Amino acid sequence: MQHQSFIQGRVVVDVGCGTGILSIFCAQAGAKRVYAVDASAIAVQAKEVVKANNLAETVIVLHGRVEDVEIDEQVDVIISEWMGYTLLYESMLGSVITARDRWLKHGGLILPCAATLYLAPITHPDRYNDSIDFWRNVYGIDMSAMLPVAKQCAFEEPCVETITGENVLTWPHVVKHVDCYTIQLNELESVSTRYKFQSMMRAPLHGFAFWFDVEFSGPANSSIITPSQSPLIGLSDDDPVDDIPSKKRTNPNEPLVLSTAPEDPPTHWQQTLIYLYDPIEVEQDQIIEGSVTLSQSKENRRFMNIHLQYSSGGRSFVKESVFR
Amino acid sequence: MQHQSFIQGRVVVDVGCGTGILSIFCAQAGAKRVYAVDASAIAVQAKEVVKANNLAETVIVLHGRVEDVEIDEQVDVIISEWMGYTLLYESMLGSVITARDRWLKHGGLILPCAATLYLAPITHPDRYNDSIDFWRNVYGIDMSAMLPVAKQCAFEEPCVETITGENVLTWPHVVKHVDCYTIQLNELESVSTRYKFQSMMRAPLHGFAFWFDVEFSGPANSSIITPSQSPLIGLSDDDPVDDIPSKKRTNPNEPLVLSTAPEDPPTHWQQTLIYLYDPIEVEQDQIIEGSVTLSQSKENRRFMNIHLQYSSGGRSFVKESVFR
Repeated sequence: MQHQSFIQGRVVVDVGCGTGILSIFCAQAGAKRVYAVDASAIAVQAKEVVKANNLAETVIVLHGRVEDVEIDEQVDVIISEWMGYTLLYESMLGSVITARDRWLKHGGLILPCAATLYLAPITHPDRYNDSIDFWRNVYGIDMSAMLPVAKQCAFEEPCVETITGENVLTWPHVVKHVDCYTIQLNELESVSTRYKFQSMMRAPLHGFAFWFDVEFSGPANSSIITPSQSPLIGLSDDDPVDDIPSKKRTNPNEPLVLSTAPEDPPTHWQQTLIYLYDPIEVEQDQIIEGSVTLSQSKENRRFMNIHLQYSSGGRSFVKESVFR
Repeated sequence: MQHQSFIQGRVVVDVGCGTGILSIFCAQAGAKRVYAVDASAIAVQAKEVVKANNLAETVIVLHGRVEDVEIDEQVDVIISEWMGYTLLYESMLGSVITARDRWLKHGGLILPCAATLYLAPITHPDRYNDSIDFWRNVYGIDMSAMLPVAKQCAFEEPCVETITGENVLTWPHVVKHVDCYTIQLNELESVSTRYKFQSMMRAPLHGFAFWFDVEFSGPANSSIITPSQSPLIGLSDDDPVDDIPSKKRTNPNEPLVLSTAPEDPPTHWQQTLIYLYDPIEVEQDQIIEGSVTLSQSKENRRFMNIHLQYSSGGRSFVKESVFR
């Protein structure tokens, strides 16, 4: 609705439309035509929902993959709710790219236009206590023998959980900034970055949290934008690691941002936590540095491998986990 | 510990010992010897836990199925935490029966000694509203077309959830009473009963809840009990359906009871809910009657089929669900 002026009278494609709710919002905002595409059987319901809301003239539901369906015109706007856990896990960004390259007019709009994936070190004593330290004394019985199994059960895989700003040890690092106008499919195969954090407090480091935000910016100063005139101030993921990236961006357009950060209201995406098997005591101002790589699993292309290397206080560790 | 006098100096077998905690409790209660049996790899940890607590002389961990492991003596006591969701889903009661028939001395003790599975009609407007009615108006959009899919997604399978006593429309019906001294393996293949409820209030009937309790009674008046002298006042599941069974039993031994009823503090078993796809408005004193059958699935012997037939206000329905 904030971009109604650009949607009014325009042709829209909704990538992965689900129930069709975003397509209907676009129709309500005055779109001339909306192609609602979904490969799943939900397209059947979307068609009925559209009909029940007397929008069958405007919203055309296409049951199929964006790679396969045919749309006989170029579109002005792409909308999509494509984001997965950790932004990229089971995400539909690839379909958005395909739709963009197949149908988007030069200067067309993509909503959301950009996404940023963040990483930050966290402390979470309650979680560690409940899952791990619990076994040290169970009704007076020493069950420490359970600790290795408990650590593996609790922390082998990434955990989708809600934490708060109080769990976060310092400003986050930008793992990946996605400009939806320019990102290419091959960039999604593997995302890698080096990070360097400086803890703002003395606390046990229990792991790292991922979260993301997405921006909804309209075209900048004209109704025609091109990739090179993108209204976004791109956050480069090639920033030197000793630059602490600021989460709050200054943008003359003040774009609408959907944030899944720990300090913001919880969403169904929550945050994704990578817990260490053993916490590391860090002092205030102590450096935590290393690298992280998110990549498609060879075992199953829907799985995501998270390779996390971290060093602090002269010791270095690697944590491998698989998002299944 | 309440049965310490019977455990002291006796031989115990713990069926499905897990971490070994019940075996250790028995050792602490003075058992002469405890055989801790588990077929899963957790037996490795159980052995370590026993050792760490200096009980390796008393607690003998056996990694294997009760059908396969060898114990070269008869035992005085069987303990087991065998209960699954809906009491019988993925339960280890079969292993307890096997252990009893292989090793329990005539007059020996089984803890828990009995279990009772209950069924009651429930009302749950909040749950129905959140899962189903939600779709009638989503941000002003009529999404009623989603209702069939929503009902199937939400209510096709049994739901393990916590409800409260306020959700329950009337006294529960005893679906099955298990006397651990006398129950036979073939009784577990299929459990069937007819029920007749009289709603204590006017409310929409949203479904039915299962829950159970288990009793820990010692031997009655002597240290030797036989099945026919069982200290339990058995609740027959052949009671005439117009008898409203009382949940509170009067038992001179006042046995310790672990209850998973909605009016009692929640447990990890919660309750098992079978929701109707469409609620039925019932008046105060209205009769809800029918039958329920729990049986092993032919598709997969670990699955449990729940066949629920219910009639009220002159209409009759059947709900089939599978606990996977």
